[in-house]
Amino acid sequence: MSVSGPVEQRVREALARIADVNDQWHIFVALDADRAIADARASDARHDDGRSHGALDGVLVAIKDNIDVEGLPSAAGIGAFRDRTAEADAHVVARLRAAGAIILGKLNMHEGALGATTDNPFFGRCANPLAPDRTPGGSSGGSAAAVAAGIVPLTLGTDTMGSVRIPAAYCGVWGLKPTTGLVAQTGLLHLSWTLDTIGLLADTPAHLAAGLSLIAGPVNDDPSSHAPPDDWSVGFRHGNGLTGVVLGRPTALDQVALEPAVADAYAAALAVAEEGGAAVQPIDIPGWQPGKLRRAGLLAVEAEGAFLLADAVERDPEGFSPEFRGFLDYGVRASAARLAGSYHLLRDIGHAARQALNGVDALVLPTAPQTAFRHGAPVPVNQADLTALANAAGCPALSIPWPTEPGALPAGIQLVGAPYSDGHLLSIGAALRESV
Amino acid sequence: MSVSGPVEQRVREALARIADVNDQWHIFVALDADRAIADARASDARHDDGRSHGALDGVLVAIKDNIDVEGLPSAAGIGAFRDRTAEADAHVVARLRAAGAIILGKLNMHEGALGATTDNPFFGRCANPLAPDRTPGGSSGGSAAAVAAGIVPLTLGTDTMGSVRIPAAYCGVWGLKPTTGLVAQTGLLHLSWTLDTIGLLADTPAHLAAGLSLIAGPVNDDPSSHAPPDDWSVGFRHGNGLTGVVLGRPTALDQVALEPAVADAYAAALAVAEEGGAAVQPIDIPGWQPGKLRRAGLLAVEAEGAFLLADAVERDPEGFSPEFRGFLDYGVRASAARLAGSYHLLRDIGHAARQALNGVDALVLPTAPQTAFRHGAPVPVNQADLTALANAAGCPALSIPWPTEPGALPAGIQLVGAPYSDGHLLSIGAALRESV
Repeated sequence: MSVSGPVEQRVREALARIADVNDQWHIFVALDADRAIADARASDARHDDGRSHGALDGVLVAIKDNIDVEGLPSAAGIGAFRDRTAEADAHVVARLRAAGAIILGKLNMHEGALGATTDNPFFGRCANPLAPDRTPGGSSGGSAAAVAAGIVPLTLGTDTMGSVRIPAAYCGVWGLKPTTGLVAQTGLLHLSWTLDTIGLLADTPAHLAAGLSLIAGPVNDDPSSHAPPDDWSVGFRHGNGLTGVVLGRPTALDQVALEPAVADAYAAALAVAEEGGAAVQPIDIPGWQPGKLRRAGLLAVEAEGAFLLADAVERDPEGFSPEFRGFLDYGVRASAARLAGSYHLLRDIGHAARQALNGVDALVLPTAPQTAFRHGAPVPVNQADLTALANAAGCPALSIPWPTEPGALPAGIQLVGAPYSDGHLLSIGAALRESV
Repeated sequence: MSVSGPVEQRVREALARIADVNDQWHIFVALDADRAIADARASDARHDDGRSHGALDGVLVAIKDNIDVEGLPSAAGIGAFRDRTAEADAHVVARLRAAGAIILGKLNMHEGALGATTDNPFFGRCANPLAPDRTPGGSSGGSAAAVAAGIVPLTLGTDTMGSVRIPAAYCGVWGLKPTTGLVAQTGLLHLSWTLDTIGLLADTPAHLAAGLSLIAGPVNDDPSSHAPPDDWSVGFRHGNGLTGVVLGRPTALDQVALEPAVADAYAAALAVAEEGGAAVQPIDIPGWQPGKLRRAGLLAVEAEGAFLLADAVERDPEGFSPEFRGFLDYGVRASAARLAGSYHLLRDIGHAARQALNGVDALVLPTAPQTAFRHGAPVPVNQADLTALANAAGCPALSIPWPTEPGALPAGIQLVGAPYSDGHLLSIGAALRESV
């Protein structure tokens, strides 16, 4: 019997690590061990033969539970969907697989993607690997935890109001919500088709860039997917530095109470940016009230989720937690005119944000107002106050892991850019983080 | 005193004609006589000096009452807004004026743009000049009537579910709903920001093309405006003929009861197309149920209108008809989740329509299922069954006036094309109409 190659070894090590920690940490909800090992062997063989498919050939990847992976359960963290098995790979999974990525399994998430603790009543309370008594955030909590635990270097998540970036910040990894429409969402079990964006979490910006370049691009069967500009490419470059970069510090940050550790990290990031040669200037986004925009987004999510899940709730109410049912009930009970007002605000503030971005390379702001909090502690209402803006605007947004005091949990620093500037954000983010 | 030039003469003739008919026909709700005469003199002087601004210099234009014209009332047909005066020209009006068009005044419309009879309780019952005991349709009824009466060759209207095309069909004029987002809507008093499109009505497709080429293009202050493809132009050409044109006849037409005169006109149009060298093929738009889509659009309109007009209704309920208030009340009472479902359907069917358009030059279908009906008769519920599709899809749609039996009212034949094919539709429409 032949000695296993390095990709197969990584898969076996990852599976062993999962076997060690998953009973406590509840990061993975399903594994595709046999196929992963077979695919790893094929990747090793390609590498041996000089036929590698590229940057992600043999890289281990895991997928949030609301994105279909052929043959695996696909429950979106919802008990009622526990027995649902995906018949085909989601578009994004198929793209990764075709490039040689090894799909290891499905990741725990906040029930239905509506919430940011990943304390899932059906699939377990996901732990933050940096401090297992704390939440990894959510809704893509498992996607952040799998990277933070060192099990895989790259995962897929989804981001409706911050669900990629918040767990990335809480767990000290990189998270990217791409430009809305840039990544086709066929095979995603939607919560909100107007705000959901499939995103990526990773150990490095280079992995985010490699992943995005594979999954970006329009497909015909997704109404929300659209072609990027003809000359678009991710265009990520390490080592560009910060000279000449102009960052906007939104004045509306005054309205959001930041935990001291986050405020300090943000001040440090601004100082690092300026020392590195970037200009940081205050920027006004007219009408943006972070709490108000977050509430508007929440109503859109509740109403769209209530529409999409109505039949399932009717069929199997016990397959949803009372809390989740309460959110969806609110989407039924609220007035259509009020929902219209929420969409109007999302549209207006999104437009204002895009207009403001005409004058700068990116907005810079914290990702979340707090670091990871303890399991069971009251959930801060302002978790998504600083992330919902990019969903409303359809803009790309990057969360950069940022150190705080030694031994303390990390913060996240967020860059928000104009549509299709995803790669530019990654380049700026890499330069900023390297300057610390 | 100098003899007046031809443009001034046309203005004076138009004003005289309005003075003759408007008390009975209620087409205009405001006139800008002095400015029109001054502008006409300036246009005459430009023509005399060889400094004409182009195709629309000196052409008389009138504007639907929901689009701002500097210094004129701007009530959108709503009693509560009777005393509202526009401080500036809407973007589209400014573009026309800068090109030398003579803005004659404001046109009657269905109250709030929500309805298709233009039997306005505050501004009078607009007559169809082809048969004054009949409705001109709506909501841009005055915009169609002004052209049909020969007062102006070009008007602006707005089209939310058919409000340009239905009155164009009923009054025997040409009507174009442009590609959604192609025409900036700054200065429009919206009914529904997701479905409203400023459009044009005219005596000829050449006037539609000239008008569209002036008003198309993005502006920064309208969130719904976006840049067309780099190489886009209206590209209207007379005399292209029909050889090689492929038209799709939607199979869903089976679900819509057509008045015999309309069915006959439609059959005649298909025959003319084929005789002219076009191929006509059945085309399936998966999921499109015309009545269901129209009801989804209506809920979106009611909810968005209820949000936009809430303060005004609260302040001055008597400034709205009980019928209009009833529509808006429905938008308040309906569930947010149901509205979300309506948006979902509009999005899905719009996507299906755009996909279907990949294989043909245009869909061909009647504009409205009936010809103009008598004032006071029950309003057919299916008026907008065939027009709402283009609003859902964001596609351009053209209504071509089509003759029926001698002495009978005309029908409208509608072409719906892929986004940005506005000019191609005009070329096909001109060729089709010329082949009769």
